[in-house]
Amino acid sequence: MSMRRVVPVVVIGGLVLCALEFGLGDAKETEVDTIRRLLETQVEGWNRNDLDAFLKVYWNDPGVVFQSGANRVDGFEALRAHYRQAYPAEGREMGKLGFSNLDVITFGSEAALARGRWQLTKSDGKRVEGLFTLLLRKFPEGWRIVHDHTSS
Amino acid sequence: MSMRRVVPVVVIGGLVLCALEFGLGDAKETEVDTIRRLLETQVEGWNRNDLDAFLKVYWNDPGVVFQSGANRVDGFEALRAHYRQAYPAEGREMGKLGFSNLDVITFGSEAALARGRWQLTKSDGKRVEGLFTLLLRKFPEGWRIVHDHTSS
Repeated sequence: MSMRRVVPVVVIGGLVLCALEFGLGDAKETEVDTIRRLLETQVEGWNRNDLDAFLKVYWNDPGVVFQSGANRVDGFEALRAHYRQAYPAEGREMGKLGFSNLDVITFGSEAALARGRWQLTKSDGKRVEGLFTLLLRKFPEGWRIVHDHTSS
Repeated sequence: MSMRRVVPVVVIGGLVLCALEFGLGDAKETEVDTIRRLLETQVEGWNRNDLDAFLKVYWNDPGVVFQSGANRVDGFEALRAHYRQAYPAEGREMGKLGFSNLDVITFGSEAALARGRWQLTKSDGKRVEGLFTLLLRKFPEGWRIVHDHTSS
């Protein structure tokens, strides 16, 4: 490679690194991306019938709250029991879960809101859908859902 | 009053002031109290059929979001139109609104979660109830609801 080619490559490479450092890759953008990836992982867990992987994204603490319709569930153990009863423990099909119109908004560096629409499609084609609001907090082990409100 | 009485009064008074200073009266507690008062004011507005007072607590911005059941409303104008259509514009009674089991949790000094149960009782005694999740942000004009999720 001649010097005539090396110089532009170095200049462009430097600009890309600079953009990543100061623009595209700033802390806030990365947290939003991290949360989006985490929620994708959660949906993937559901879609391979892995309820533990789905639940792992919730804060494993008596303080976690799940509000669904007019029903409130307090604490991780009760949350797990709720899902176990509604899905695998009853032998019911979990179905295919999807999220759309996902917004993620951070509040400072340790709290975030995620909201969007969920769709659950069963193998017989029956489809239910609704909206969700999630509050996430950043813990040493990563972002976890501390509050979930869902409705249909 | 003898000195025997004055000394305990001074000691107890000092302890009370100390508790107010370092415990009950810290900055975080005050924001929680402010938000609780704001939501009480909002309910009072509803209960005197003053929809504008009720709506004043929402962020007056196209970015405010209201999720109810499977329906999402974006922006303050659409939120106002939603309430106007559902209540006074249709000549429907607003009823008596109440909140219970209210939790307020702050995230840093400028964001907060409020959640609880709502009850709406009509003059014929019919009662609907459900749960709500509110996200509030602190603006120069005070705390405002930026996201509301309600279900029944």
